[in-house]
This record gives sequence, structure tokens and C-alpha cells, in this order.
Amino acid sequence: MSIKAGILGATGTVGQRFILLLSAHPQFTINALGASARSAGKTYEETTKWKLSSDIPEEVKGMMVKNCVPEEFKECDVVFSGLDASVAGEIEMSFLLADLVVFSNAKNYRRDPTVPLIVPTVNASHFDLIAHQRKLHSLRKGFLVTNANCSTTGLVVVLKPLQDAFGPLESVIVNTLQAISGAGYPGVASLDIFDNIVPYISGEEEKIEWETLKILGGINEARSAFQLLSETKVSATCNRVPVLDGHTECVSVKFKRRPPPSVEEVVKVLEEYVSDAQKIGCYSAPKKAIVVSRQDDRPQPRLDRDSGNGYSVTVGRVRECGVLDIKFTLLAHNTILGAAGSGILNAEIALAKGILVVDDH
Amino acid sequence: MSIKAGILGATGTVGQRFILLLSAHPQFTINALGASARSAGKTYEETTKWKLSSDIPEEVKGMMVKNCVPEEFKECDVVFSGLDASVAGEIEMSFLLADLVVFSNAKNYRRDPTVPLIVPTVNASHFDLIAHQRKLHSLRKGFLVTNANCSTTGLVVVLKPLQDAFGPLESVIVNTLQAISGAGYPGVASLDIFDNIVPYISGEEEKIEWETLKILGGINEARSAFQLLSETKVSATCNRVPVLDGHTECVSVKFKRRPPPSVEEVVKVLEEYVSDAQKIGCYSAPKKAIVVSRQDDRPQPRLDRDSGNGYSVTVGRVRECGVLDIKFTLLAHNTILGAAGSGILNAEIALAKGILVVDDH
Amino acid sequence: MSIKAGILGATGTVGQRFILLLSAHPQFTINALGASARSAGKTYEETTKWKLSSDIPEEVKGMMVKNCVPEEFKECDVVFSGLDASVAGEIEMSFLLADLVVFSNAKNYRRDPTVPLIVPTVNASHFDLIAHQRKLHSLRKGFLVTNANCSTTGLVVVLKPLQDAFGPLESVIVNTLQAISGAGYPGVASLDIFDNIVPYISGEEEKIEWETLKILGGINEARSAFQLLSETKVSATCNRVPVLDGHTECVSVKFKRRPPPSVEEVVKVLEEYVSDAQKIGCYSAPKKAIVVSRQDDRPQPRLDRDSGNGYSVTVGRVRECGVLDIKFTLLAHNTILGAAGSGILNAEIALAKGILVVDDH
Amino acid sequence: MSIKAGILGATGTVGQRFILLLSAHPQFTINALGASARSAGKTYEETTKWKLSSDIPEEVKGMMVKNCVPEEFKECDVVFSGLDASVAGEIEMSFLLADLVVFSNAKNYRRDPTVPLIVPTVNASHFDLIAHQRKLHSLRKGFLVTNANCSTTGLVVVLKPLQDAFGPLESVIVNTLQAISGAGYPGVASLDIFDNIVPYISGEEEKIEWETLKILGGINEARSAFQLLSETKVSATCNRVPVLDGHTECVSVKFKRRPPPSVEEVVKVLEEYVSDAQKIGCYSAPKKAIVVSRQDDRPQPRLDRDSGNGYSVTVGRVRECGVLDIKFTLLAHNTILGAAGSGILNAEIALAKGILVVDDH
Repeated sequence: MSIKAGILGATGTVGQRFILLLSAHPQFTINALGASARSAGKTYEETTKWKLSSDIPEEVKGMMVKNCVPEEFKECDVVFSGLDASVAGEIEMSFLLADLVVFSNAKNYRRDPTVPLIVPTVNASHFDLIAHQRKLHSLRKGFLVTNANCSTTGLVVVLKPLQDAFGPLESVIVNTLQAISGAGYPGVASLDIFDNIVPYISGEEEKIEWETLKILGGINEARSAFQLLSETKVSATCNRVPVLDGHTECVSVKFKRRPPPSVEEVVKVLEEYVSDAQKIGCYSAPKKAIVVSRQDDRPQPRLDRDSGNGYSVTVGRVRECGVLDIKFTLLAHNTILGAAGSGILNAEIALAKGILVVDDH
Repeated sequence: MSIKAGILGATGTVGQRFILLLSAHPQFTINALGASARSAGKTYEETTKWKLSSDIPEEVKGMMVKNCVPEEFKECDVVFSGLDASVAGEIEMSFLLADLVVFSNAKNYRRDPTVPLIVPTVNASHFDLIAHQRKLHSLRKGFLVTNANCSTTGLVVVLKPLQDAFGPLESVIVNTLQAISGAGYPGVASLDIFDNIVPYISGEEEKIEWETLKILGGINEARSAFQLLSETKVSATCNRVPVLDGHTECVSVKFKRRPPPSVEEVVKVLEEYVSDAQKIGCYSAPKKAIVVSRQDDRPQPRLDRDSGNGYSVTVGRVRECGVLDIKFTLLAHNTILGAAGSGILNAEIALAKGILVVDDH
Repeated sequence: MSIKAGILGATGTVGQRFILLLSAHPQFTINALGASARSAGKTYEETTKWKLSSDIPEEVKGMMVKNCVPEEFKECDVVFSGLDASVAGEIEMSFLLADLVVFSNAKNYRRDPTVPLIVPTVNASHFDLIAHQRKLHSLRKGFLVTNANCSTTGLVVVLKPLQDAFGPLESVIVNTLQAISGAGYPGVASLDIFDNIVPYISGEEEKIEWETLKILGGINEARSAFQLLSETKVSATCNRVPVLDGHTECVSVKFKRRPPPSVEEVVKVLEEYVSDAQKIGCYSAPKKAIVVSRQDDRPQPRLDRDSGNGYSVTVGRVRECGVLDIKFTLLAHNTILGAAGSGILNAEIALAKGILVVDDH
Repeated sequence: MSIKAGILGATGTVGQRFILLLSAHPQFTINALGASARSAGKTYEETTKWKLSSDIPEEVKGMMVKNCVPEEFKECDVVFSGLDASVAGEIEMSFLLADLVVFSNAKNYRRDPTVPLIVPTVNASHFDLIAHQRKLHSLRKGFLVTNANCSTTGLVVVLKPLQDAFGPLESVIVNTLQAISGAGYPGVASLDIFDNIVPYISGEEEKIEWETLKILGGINEARSAFQLLSETKVSATCNRVPVLDGHTECVSVKFKRRPPPSVEEVVKVLEEYVSDAQKIGCYSAPKKAIVVSRQDDRPQPRLDRDSGNGYSVTVGRVRECGVLDIKFTLLAHNTILGAAGSGILNAEIALAKGILVVDDH
């Protein structure tokens, strides 16, 4: 089977990652590339400032870049969007209304009450709302799903099994150390981050604090609405650090349950966690959604970001917190699990669940 | 007046900073340099791998390095110790017992119930215990004072005015992003920190959690014992980041007082804080012990670490915390205020208070 | 005496350096700041992304930024231009024709046969052409002088005494390792230079190869034309490296003289070099135009770039070259001696020579 | 077929790379690991500070580390040595005399007139001297081959086809920008290389200048001696730069042939170069030994170092040199082609040539 994939925002950093992942993927074939009017009509190689250390796949180099309009992508079984938020809203909606399947990395529809916000190793169950979404827009096969913000992603992967095992979380304090690739290209100026930390990323803290509540929340019985967590408080502080790839997050958690779980219980639950994406047997699903390190000084971005081909979250330093209950440090690859990879793994889940339907070509 | 200063551990990174600061200081003259037996008997220039961007001061280059024994430093009015903890315990005690004045950056005596642990812009009042210390050891003029761990230092400077103004703190969660210079030389291997974060610094979290309680605590009426804070919980997470100088700390605070102070009240108190070191008019005391930045993206190590010649702490992003009460980000220069500078400013305070006595030479 | 100085391109990285240097300068007062229409009418603090680790000088923060038109700068005794080449040509010419004195860091007029290209510690004698330039444009006191490209600057400072002492150079091969600050702000994207080298800087090699011939060349007897070196071949290769400030250059030189000078003779000549700027006693002239290091592993950007307050060039590793005659490594501060500092020191020379005339105000 | 491989110095950075490459290699099986007495008797995982971003291969984690004595490695068909030069001399000789096959990355025997110094994509023909070497030491199957210094390696790969096509080289000037991984672990202190260049690497320039002459030289008719190039002058300058992996080299070349080849002729020769390792069809031989980039700003370490799985050399910026004839910039992966990979590919060649004999086990 070969699923025809289109990529919107194909020349950007997330788009480049989509291309690399899809090019090596056994189920997908890259069928169409979309970018801004400035790039449309040129070959991909010609118009792209490629920034990944693996080369542009040969079959992609000569592909013509198209405008991001539904007609140009109508043959695609699925469209992955790495569009910038400034244009993603309008374009993705036009694709949805054209009955296309869109997996978006943009923030525009994450808070939409009819659009699932899915981290593939966390809340695959939220695909249950797609039927409702299709009905709303009178679609036959199209739908729109977004993945989460890159820093939200790592966090919820670890919080999910804790919530499942120990009940609702009272509060979460998270401090991030985020890689420069998260800002795209040209993104962070070298003069800003060289020998430096920037203790602020616009809009990022709000995303973590809100998205966590949707992703870890449930769905109503009618499968028509998301039920956001109402009892959990999340407080985020985000920093940009001079690291290429891999977001590190220092997390303290307080459980509602008294007494709270012990460090050993928490480690056990994290180590034993198996997500739906793994159970289904998705191609990109990592062997372990969470890798727990027992070494004092791990996770480290350079050593751990490629764990599970970038789809695993590595957790270390699980220990008691003197203020809340438990604290730990986690690391997730921000452009794989935290961006393009989530979109692709979400598509694999949708395919396995029969939600993503591939027409005979 | 010229106060004769000795420096122990003079060839190390803290020792180098002592040399640079004292060399440009109007009150002190560098009189003696001590280092390990391997360096003793050589000129300073010959035996030192100098790592600061300002050159070795001319008058120091040719000085002979001595062994770290009291006889070699008996002419010194004050001795600053940048010794490694592995040797500081024994050497500093021998200096104290020889009736010498020692300001130590080492951790060995920080928890000693008879040794003040003083951050100069925080708890100069702890010098009150020196009389008791002298009595214990039958000293005429000698005494021993330590400064705090580099990451504790920035934290307590900001917590002090908050505690003064709003009463006891319920809890503090602090996440640090610490510069490589904090680990000395050769210290952090480039292969460990390049394109990387190390989420662990041995012993550092315990230092922050414990030292804070002593520094922000009081002294009993008899001036013979420290009263550690017993009601405040501190939880620290420490990271090494690829930054040369300047420790960044992301802090969340909960007050006991209900309702807690507002963001505006907190900012006002921080902006108006004047430490004893400033009131006394010490030479190295910064114009402002705390500089509050209103810009979203400050403090930044490269831009703010030299504020107040490295003696100010810069605070930014003061805002509400969704879990505790207030959160903010602070930055302190780890080898100036966080190490050598604290020792020197402590000595200036001791001089002004008449505790450090300079004999006629 | 206070010389009123204007700064064009005041919000850029070179402009910021002009402000810092002039603000601490005993002879100059910052009188007017010019920038693009986008900034004009705003206060300097409000419109500038300040990127230097020393703060914006207090007296400059509130100054209103003006448009870069001569009328706005007519009170200025001297105007320093840090303008981008895309606009410098027209603006600087309009200032010159308005009889203003312009010291430009832009490349536009460097090749102009009537405009001196002066590195202050190299070819102050080229000011002799100003009378001719004034005559050409019928100017009373105005004139235009440019300084050299940042990487040319360090090179010619070291070649000048060699040429003076040993006669014409046969050939020069230079490889540069240039700092990111040389590209301005936002300049080099962090994704481009992080864990990376960029082996190309547009137009840079041509600048080094050509400018060297003009700077090290002479002037005809009539003082109306520059005589470019015709016998010296220069081959440059330029790299961008992840260093904040300070351009490193590895140089091999072949002399026409046979036998060539020895390493010792070369070192001696470099150590004894005294430039005109020093002889005249200019305020910013470094004690030594060239600092020769005898240590194997110097110069290093972080340790040596501030030598002579950024006005000295540090040379090390002087040794025989197995292909040409002599090779060495040099380091110059690219935004001080290599940019803004050259302009200011050039103005000091012009003042001392009576070419820059300060009217009574 | 499975060739039993031993690794000496297995815990070091080169040893780690040997493990990673051999673990994924279809022809070799890791059979024995040797390290210092401090590590011997411990499991590999327990005693190693692993620094590569791919994890320790599972089958290696639990292997017991042995002492570096021949008896412990007698079952090995081939032994790869990543030993430090301080111990490699004695150990490798004892292995050779025990009739073992040794491929060494150490410098100790590179200048030995009976030991081939082989860069696999350059001078596989030097294996012809092995018969002579065996005779000298009365060996049946054992022999010793070294690979070149990491910075020599990239250079000779590019010079080889130029020399083959255009005749002897008159002179070569090379400036290197070398990655930190070349110095091993802990190697370069972060305080030394952070925001810095170190313009000196002990012994490195001499290695490039000498090794090039042996590698690009011939063998006498009796196959008993190497004929070093006598007419080619090489001048090297070596810098350490803040890059993780990948040595960049800026090279200028002068040919003896007049007129010299044009840029186009040089590019053509480089693009068409096929090394013996490729012709033989070795597993690790890259598709192209030399990849020529036509983009102005390539090669770049982060983007090009993994070209050909780290076995290709990327060349860019081929252009005329104003002093010598032709200049260009090359990049080679210093721990793959420049170290462990060369050893492995050399072994593959020896196997194909029937020099490395695998006994029935």
C-alpha cells in the first residue's frame, strides 16, 4: 500500500522534517509539496534552504513546488501541514472543506472545540471526535487533526501514565530549556543565543498550560465535545537555550491522591507505559514511549534526543520534590515527536483505526 | 589605607577572579598567593593557566606562589580562599587557628554552626556571630566567614526583600541554568556540554536547599547560634548549560501570607531593596542589589551578567504562578557575586563594621 | 574641547559600538543619531535592539533618532557612519556635499580613487589626499574617509611593518575565521552557525585582496592619487565560525627579498612597530599596535580580542612556512579596530593633523 | 562469514566509534574489548563514559573488558587499536609479534619504514609491503597497518586524484578548522573552546606535513620500502574550533605542471575519482570518495560530515588561488574516515586482497 502524502509548508524546517520522515516511510509516498507563492513553480531543491544533516531525498529534489490550494492536492490521501500560523488558519480550513485529510502542526486549530489535539503516544482516543467533525462540515472522508506544541508534547507523554495510574494531578510546574530548531529558520539570531539564554518564548507558556488540559482531558459520551481537565493547575516557564535539537523540561508534580505515589511507583508506571500507538503496532511508534534513565546525569539532548528514532521521551532524575510531590527531567525531540513525527504517527493511527481512508488510485 | 590580602587557591578560576578584582580595588593590595605544592616556588605567570579575558595584572605576574601554610601569610590582614573543597577544610582551619582572617568560597564550613554563611547583599547581620567564634577558638583578630554557593547566592538576594516585606515564605521551587565557569578549570569537558544540557550538578541542589535556610534565617539573642528557617520548603533542580558566565534561575514562590502580594507589590519591593552593604557604602556594593527588568525577554546572561560590575542580581518576568503565587527569572554572575566578589564585599563589610582589623604595618 | 559627533546607522551593531566608544570618549559628545525612517522620531532606547553587554549609555537612551539627512546633522563636527552598504552610498555623498565630515565604515567608497581608505594604525599618511578631495567637491571643511573591511584591518596592521622593514611582499595567503558579530543583527542565523563553520562570506575575499593593495600602497607626489601595490599578490579564504567577537587570521607571507628575514627578525620588527596614531598620541591609540605573543596557543579570540581596548592586533605563532617564507596567526577585534574603533581613531588623527576642524559653537 | 574483531582502547572516543561501526557491520563480530587495567574485569557499560548519540549496542553492554595483552585477543581475526599513543607503541608491537593482525589509529608506527600508513580511499596499494613486514618479524598471518592522522586523511583524499591526473604537486598550504571530538574525552575543556578558537594543536602540523609525503608516495620495486614524495612542500596550520565533528580544511595547491590545470579540469578529476576501495567493492566504501559541491557555502561540518556515512570527503569552493594555482575547502568526518572508519575500511581491503586471512573457527 502506498498512501499519497502532500506536505504544506514544505520548504520550512518542519516541512523538511516531514520530507525526511516520509521519504523513508514504508507506507507513504510524497505526492505533492506546497509552499508560498514565492516558491511555487520552482523545484524543491532550487527553492529550499535545506538545513538537515541528511541530504534532500533524491526523489524530492526535482519535484515542483505547488501553491497551497486544495485543487493542487486533491490526489493526496493525506496532507501534512507545517505551515506558519500566519497562513495556516485559512489554508487548512480550505483543505478541510475540500474534504481533504489534514494533519497540522500549526497552532491555529488546537483550541477549536471540534478539532482533536492529539499527541500520538498519549490520546489517540480523541480520534473518536472525527465523526462529529465530519458531520459538522458535511465531509465524506476529510478531517483535521492537530498535534501539540513541541514543549507540550514531551510533558503530556509523561503525565499521561501518571494520571492513569495515580488519579488526577493537583498541579504541575514545568521549566523548559528549548532547542533553537524549535523556532524555525532563520529563527533565532546567533547573536541572541550565542553564550546566552533567552528566558522567554512568545506564547509558549500559555500553550503548555492550556494544551495539557485538553490532551489529558476526556471526551463526552456523545463524542461531540472535549472535556478539559478542570482540577489540574499547570504553571510553565520557557527558556531558549543554545542546543540544536531536543527540548529538556524540568517538572514537579503534585497528585491529588494522599499519600502520593512513591518514587519507585512512579518509575515503575513510567517504565511500563505502553501507548495505544504501540499497541496498534504503528510503524513509527517507538518500542518504548517513555525511556526511563537511572543515570544521575540523563537525559541529555545530544545523547538522548534520537531515542526511539526521536519518538521516545526520555525521563531521568525521578525523585521527591520538597515542595510538590515528585520531580523529574524529561527530554523530547522537538522536531520529530514534537512536530512532524507526531503528525505522521497520528496519520498511522488514523489509518489503523480506519478513519483515514485510502481510495483506490 | 592598603589592606594586605592573601589569596589561597590563587591559580584556579575563583583565585583568578580574586586577583582581577583585588588588583583593581582601591583598598586592597595583593600580598601573597598560595597554591598547591606543584605551583609553589614558581612565578604566578609561569604556573597559571589564565582563563580570563582581562590579562594577568602586571604586578602579579612575577609574584612567587607560596605553599598554603599560615606562616607564609602571616603578614596578610585578610586571606581570601578559592581552595578546592578537597583541601580547604584543613588549610582554612589552620589559618583560622593561626589567628588569621579568612573569607572562604569553599563549601567546607558553610554548615558549621559557628561560621557565618554570608551573601553580602543579604545577611551582613550574621557577622554578629564572629565574637562568639573568636571566643571559641581564643582568637584575637582572626575569624572565618564563608560565602554561599554560586546558585544559592542569586536566589537569596531576591528572596530576602520578599521575606522582609511579606513575611515567611511557604515554599520555593527553583530551576537553575548554570554557566560552565562554575565548574572551574578544566571543569566541564567540551564534549559534555557542546550542543547539550547536563541536567545534574553533583551536590548543588542540596546546597541551595540547605544554605537558603541558614542565610535567610536569624541569629539567637546571645549571638551564639544561627536559627535556620524551619517553615520554608525549598526544592531545587540544577542544570549545566552552554553559557560561559552567569547563572539563570527560574523561581516560583509561595508566601504564607494570604492573600499573597500582587505582582506589582513584589516588583516594588524588589526595586526598592537596599542591602546593608549599600547602606554602609562599601566600595564594591552595586548601586542596586537587584535590578528589575521590565522587558519580556530579560534577564539574559550575555547582556545582564555584568550589571553592577557583576554584583547586581537582575530579575525579570515577575508574574503570577498558576501553582504557587509568584514566579520570576533571575540572573547572577556566578564568579563575581556568586564567588570571589562575595568574599571581597564581605571583607569590605567586615572592615566597615570594625570586625576586620588592619594592623599598622 | 568637546567635538560634536553624529552617528548614522545608529541602531545597528556598528552604530551601537560607535555609541559605546564615543560615550566614554573624552573628546567627543554624541550630538545626533540617525537611522532609517522606521526609527526616526522615536527615542533611541525604544527603537533599538541593543545587543552589547554594556548597557545603552544613559544620556543616549532618550535621544530622538533622526532621519539620515544632512540638515539634521549640520551641527555635527564629525559624522560616523555605520550605515548598511545598500543606503550608505547616497547618504554619505549627500553629507559630503553638504560640507560635513564623514568617517564611514561602509564599503561603498573604499575603492573611490579620491577617498582615503585608512586603517588608523597603518596608513594615516593617506589623509594627505583630503586637500585634493575637498578641491574636487569645492568643500571648505567637509571630507570623507572610510575605514577598511574588518578582516582586511587586522591583516594590514601586521603586513605594514613587515613591508616597511623588509621591502615589498611577493605574496600573501590568508585564511580567516570570522566572528558572527561581523555580520550584524540579525545577521547569521543560529541554525547556520551552531556546531558549524560556513566556509564563505559573500564579497569578503575580494575586499581583503583589493583593500590591502590600496592601504599598503602609497600616494603620488601631487597628493592627488593612490598608488596601489602592483607587485604583491594576495589570496584570501574567509570562513564564518561560532565565535562572538574577534577575527582570527592565519597568514603566510613571501618576501621579495632573498634571503627572506628570519623568524627572529620578523618578531623583532612586529614588537617594535609604532604607528603614527601612537606617535601623535591619539587618545584611543593602543600602547602597542601589535602585541606579539610567545605562547604556542595564542592568540585566542576570547582571551585576546580586548587587548589594547580592542585596538591592538595580537600576533602569535610566528614561524617558518614550508611553502612561502613566514607564517603566523593574528587576531583583531572586528567591531572595534575592525569597524567603529577605526573610524573614531581616524577622526582623532584627523583632529591632531588639523584636518578635522572644530568650529566654535 | 563473520570475522572476529577485537578492539583495543575500547572505552575511548575512537574505541566507541569502532564499536558503533563494527556492531552494524555485516562482516565483523565484536569478540573482545581491551582497555586499561582500571577498566579490565568490568562490563563495558559499567566502565565506559559513552559519548556518542547512538546508544551502546546491546550485545556490547555486558561484555567484559579485558587487559590489552595478546593472549586475551588470540581468537580475534583482526584487532582494531584506538589506543592512546602513550601506550600504543608497546602494546601494538606485542600483538604484532604474537602474529595478530592490527589496524591502528595511533601515531606510533606511522613513520615506521616497514609499516604501511594507509588511507583506504587513497593508497590501498601500500598493502604490498605487508609480505616484507611479515618476513621481517617471521609472521604467518599477523601484520600491522596504521591509518593516518584525522586531518591528514581528508587532505590526501583530495590531493591523490590531482597528483594522479596532473603530475607532481609543487606545494600545498593547508589551514585546518578541527572539531573537538578529535581530541578525545575529556579532551578540550569547555572553558578553552567556548566562544573561542585555539590556534594550535600539538604535533598536528608536523603530522600533516610528513604523513602526506608517505601516503602520496610510492613503494620501491622490491616492495620493501616506501618512497616518500621529495618534491612536494606542505605547510600546515591547525586550529581547534567549536564544532563537534568534522574537520574543515582550506587548501591552496601549486602544481609543477605549467600551465596548471584549470578549475574545471580540477573539478572534473575530483568528481570522477574512484578509489581502489570502491573498485574492490568494500562494504564501507562510499559511493563517492569525493563529493564535489557546487554551492558557494559548502562544505559545512553539520550538513556534510555524514556524507557517504562519514566515509566521503566533501570538497567545495574550487577556484583559482591568486598566489598558488588552485584553492578549495574540504571536509572530512574526523572520527569516521579520519579514525575508526579508516581502520575498518582498511581491514575490508586487506580481506578482499587476501592479506587478512580468517581462520576457520
